[in-house]
Amino acid sequence: MNQAPTDRTRVRRVASNAHYDSATLHAIIDDAYLCHIAFSDGKGAHCIPTACWREGDHLYIHGSNGSRMVKHLIESECCVTITHLDGLVLARSAFNHSMNYRSAMVYGTFEVVEGDAARHAMEAFMKKVAPGRQAEIRPGSDKEYAATTVLRISLAEAACKMRTGGPNDDEEDMNWPVWAGVLPWARTPLAPQQDPACSLPAPAYVLDWAAK
Amino acid sequence: MNQAPTDRTRVRRVASNAHYDSATLHAIIDDAYLCHIAFSDGKGAHCIPTACWREGDHLYIHGSNGSRMVKHLIESECCVTITHLDGLVLARSAFNHSMNYRSAMVYGTFEVVEGDAARHAMEAFMKKVAPGRQAEIRPGSDKEYAATTVLRISLAEAACKMRTGGPNDDEEDMNWPVWAGVLPWARTPLAPQQDPACSLPAPAYVLDWAAK
Repeated sequence: MNQAPTDRTRVRRVASNAHYDSATLHAIIDDAYLCHIAFSDGKGAHCIPTACWREGDHLYIHGSNGSRMVKHLIESECCVTITHLDGLVLARSAFNHSMNYRSAMVYGTFEVVEGDAARHAMEAFMKKVAPGRQAEIRPGSDKEYAATTVLRISLAEAACKMRTGGPNDDEEDMNWPVWAGVLPWARTPLAPQQDPACSLPAPAYVLDWAAK
Repeated sequence: MNQAPTDRTRVRRVASNAHYDSATLHAIIDDAYLCHIAFSDGKGAHCIPTACWREGDHLYIHGSNGSRMVKHLIESECCVTITHLDGLVLARSAFNHSMNYRSAMVYGTFEVVEGDAARHAMEAFMKKVAPGRQAEIRPGSDKEYAATTVLRISLAEAACKMRTGGPNDDEEDMNWPVWAGVLPWARTPLAPQQDPACSLPAPAYVLDWAAK
């Protein structure tokens, strides 16, 4: 599917970089631990970063019951955006410099996930963060779950935009005597930092982190 | 200065993680190539990722004259957010899991930067991306500059929130038999990818990138 689901998700600028298929959308979300959410209230537009994860065709977040964000997201439409920046694109002309990235935007309204479904969703989040850890930790108490709101938003109204590859220079600039190419980067795991109060051996997912 | 400049920038949740000083704000912006901007129009709230840089007490962005974002940002208030995710914090209880991050939020209205000031701002952006490159590339033409809008927003109304360090577990969970600590990561430069059509030697800033 390479057609925008709605008018406001149709990418206008460099439309050739747009993607509307689930596989692209899921991959961008699954590679993220964080999204930014735009919503408005009487004090203006807000852009809040928060942890996110995916199950099926929904993006999940969680928050403290009392948070401003949770209160507003239940009531009103929002836009959720995830962006991975993959590199700086150095072209021969100033104008054609660019960046390589993968971004996803989701429009809609969050709904509250209740009861067992909320617990299941939080466990799915833990599985994303550290597979196998849920069975090892002190699980959430009823009081802790009661203080936490889990929300999800449908991925039905979404659009992705990506740029990959080298510079796209104008033909007449191709002989300009300057280095051209991409300066890429990656999010790289660093050595795990064990809590000084913990003397237990590292589990597989911690060893895997160090080895990535 | 550790007092919020306005009511809407006052951090309520874990207020001890809030910072309102310029040094913290500048460091978070200067470490970023990308911000997310929230604004609203008749189609709802939007959260748009875009390149950013800083000069003095302003955050700068640029865009194509015709873009929806540029049109709306000139007319209305917005919220600009930058977030660096530094690590996953693995606590002994599910509830106390967290993330280490550095985030900045700026509220206000963008203003258009015109003429020589716009050219200077774009050169400052190039300097951030690749110091020394401005003198090597084919500079922007009058037509290219005319097609680009440079915008800036004052950093006067801003707030930062950061979390660092290991897990904060409840006293009664400290003996739970599970590994605890932080899984950190970093944005790591990868080897530069030279354009196949370019056979020139790499300049210092490209060699520096590879050596980072």
